[in-house]
Amino acid sequence: MLAADHAARLGDAASRLAAVGGSALVIAPSPDLRYLIGYEPMPLERPTVLVVDAEGAVVLIVPALERPLAAETGAAELFEIVGWRDDEDPYALIASRLGGGGTVFVGDRIWGSHVLSLQRTMPGAAWTSATPIVGAMRARKDEAELGALRRAAAAADAALADLVAEPIGGRTERAVAAMLAELLVAHGHDTAEFTIVASGPNAASPHHEPTDRRIGAGDAIVLDFGGTIDGYYSDTTRTLVVGAAGKQLVAVHAVVAEAQRAATDAVRPGVEMWTIDRAARTVIDDAGYGDRFIHRTGHGIGLELHEPPYAAAGDHTVLEPGMAFSVEPGIYLEGKLGVRIEDIVAVTETGVEPLNTSPRALVVLD
Amino acid sequence: MLAADHAARLGDAASRLAAVGGSALVIAPSPDLRYLIGYEPMPLERPTVLVVDAEGAVVLIVPALERPLAAETGAAELFEIVGWRDDEDPYALIASRLGGGGTVFVGDRIWGSHVLSLQRTMPGAAWTSATPIVGAMRARKDEAELGALRRAAAAADAALADLVAEPIGGRTERAVAAMLAELLVAHGHDTAEFTIVASGPNAASPHHEPTDRRIGAGDAIVLDFGGTIDGYYSDTTRTLVVGAAGKQLVAVHAVVAEAQRAATDAVRPGVEMWTIDRAARTVIDDAGYGDRFIHRTGHGIGLELHEPPYAAAGDHTVLEPGMAFSVEPGIYLEGKLGVRIEDIVAVTETGVEPLNTSPRALVVLD
Repeated sequence: MLAADHAARLGDAASRLAAVGGSALVIAPSPDLRYLIGYEPMPLERPTVLVVDAEGAVVLIVPALERPLAAETGAAELFEIVGWRDDEDPYALIASRLGGGGTVFVGDRIWGSHVLSLQRTMPGAAWTSATPIVGAMRARKDEAELGALRRAAAAADAALADLVAEPIGGRTERAVAAMLAELLVAHGHDTAEFTIVASGPNAASPHHEPTDRRIGAGDAIVLDFGGTIDGYYSDTTRTLVVGAAGKQLVAVHAVVAEAQRAATDAVRPGVEMWTIDRAARTVIDDAGYGDRFIHRTGHGIGLELHEPPYAAAGDHTVLEPGMAFSVEPGIYLEGKLGVRIEDIVAVTETGVEPLNTSPRALVVLD
Repeated sequence: MLAADHAARLGDAASRLAAVGGSALVIAPSPDLRYLIGYEPMPLERPTVLVVDAEGAVVLIVPALERPLAAETGAAELFEIVGWRDDEDPYALIASRLGGGGTVFVGDRIWGSHVLSLQRTMPGAAWTSATPIVGAMRARKDEAELGALRRAAAAADAALADLVAEPIGGRTERAVAAMLAELLVAHGHDTAEFTIVASGPNAASPHHEPTDRRIGAGDAIVLDFGGTIDGYYSDTTRTLVVGAAGKQLVAVHAVVAEAQRAATDAVRPGVEMWTIDRAARTVIDDAGYGDRFIHRTGHGIGLELHEPPYAAAGDHTVLEPGMAFSVEPGIYLEGKLGVRIEDIVAVTETGVEPLNTSPRALVVLD
């Protein structure tokens, strides 16, 4: 785990809560919790929640049997830890720390069952997402976080370079995915989290899961892969072809590459996230493939693979230095092929820093 | 994945929903979703939900980019799949399928952010947990599910038998945990999910995470481990000691063993879950360790490691043949030692079937 100033983060969260008139933050096991206090047990039916109030009081409420585990957290001196036993009502205990009313800001990943139980216990409170508070804090990475994202991106680039030096044609998607996962770890990832290998018509499915399909000559192959280093994600996509590329693939790839470049060029402090999406979409619309670009252009990245802000219509987040997100337009022709190109970029004081450096051209393999 | 009659499960869910006057079930990616339709993508900020209404109409609402993936699900002919694009409001789409009101039963693991967004979109609806419907269905395992649980338990027993044949003393908790994880897979688990190795004073922390502590002579060692086979969990705990066991450890172990036997003997159709907890707790209370038994006696097990019903105060579930759960009393003496013994048991037509057969006595290693 990266070193982090958890006291400063908790103080910042409390100030932001006070600024919007909230009564408390409620954060369950999730990347939000790891970010705030460096503790992230498995989410369970037994609620664990961090409660932060607008005056900055902090308490971690945990199942009694996890109290010793919680007490080992590096930041444990910053808050009181209260254990509840299996014969007690944890929601009543949490409610007693929430003051019974006002507006409670709840972390996005808390289980619905816990939200419904808290709402039943505190009928007078209002409930809303904590993302405008904790998501906004997490969106702007500090130097240590940017360093981890850079290392993860470089390791993903190195894994790809090794992979394309191997014979790919004739192998199954599953075999290539396994090789890619091994390479991610070999190049320094702590974990390989996902390896999409989508070939031929399968490439038209953006979240395709690798199958036993053998990769053949002329197939477009979308590789979308990543893992974590010190908890921070990589996420890179390149499109390859084995043997000669067909005309349609070459044409579609050129459009996606231009869209990806246009979106990347649009990144700088002060612009809104939706404009990054618009930049990519305009290129693809103009080329006549607008209805085949079936997802947003990108997502924030950090302790989560997908986190705010989003390069999508309607996201009015103003870009600030330290924000990091994916730029990944794609075009999908059902039954035929798919193309996607993705890099992680960071917003600098004056513009954009692409964290990935793998060539973006259509990779043609023997 | 096990073969399952998803049409029958969906029909059963709709009938149960109608019987309690509910308007719809809303199930997000989770073991509930896998159980009902055999599909379980990664839970994401983009909502995927299965909607079942009381008339039995079923629709799966998915992000457009995951539509091809969802369509590959074996049970996909049983329901309509509707994709939403990143520039659309998914909650409005889901609301349009929910009929706008009534009582909506929501799966426990849906993210809180999705619940809050749905509540904002449908202010007239009431929201409650789907566990009385889907949890109740899942609690009673069919023969194929019991078969998977039996295979998982046997594989966990075999892993333990191999482990205790190895030298343990002098190794670190982490090294023993890694060995145990390998043995779980070697004996047929598809995944090793957790391997608690808690030695000496660490054994007093029920959910301890393995450290670099070297296991020494006289240490109590709690091993709590499991994985999945065909999606179904094993979960076994045994307490070991290296070299001669101290008097206190022997005495505490005898109490826990008696409590575990008493609770197991109490299992039969027709009794309520809380009585299983009571049976274990009475033994431990009588021995004077009541306040050191800091968790419930057990939890249902299946597609989740912890699922309803719970052997805990307040759980009035009436046991029926086919239910399966853990029986795992423990005593924890802070700073000194801990003891826990855990088996998975299934309720039969007339009594109880322990799925684990590892000896329950204190395991004394050289």
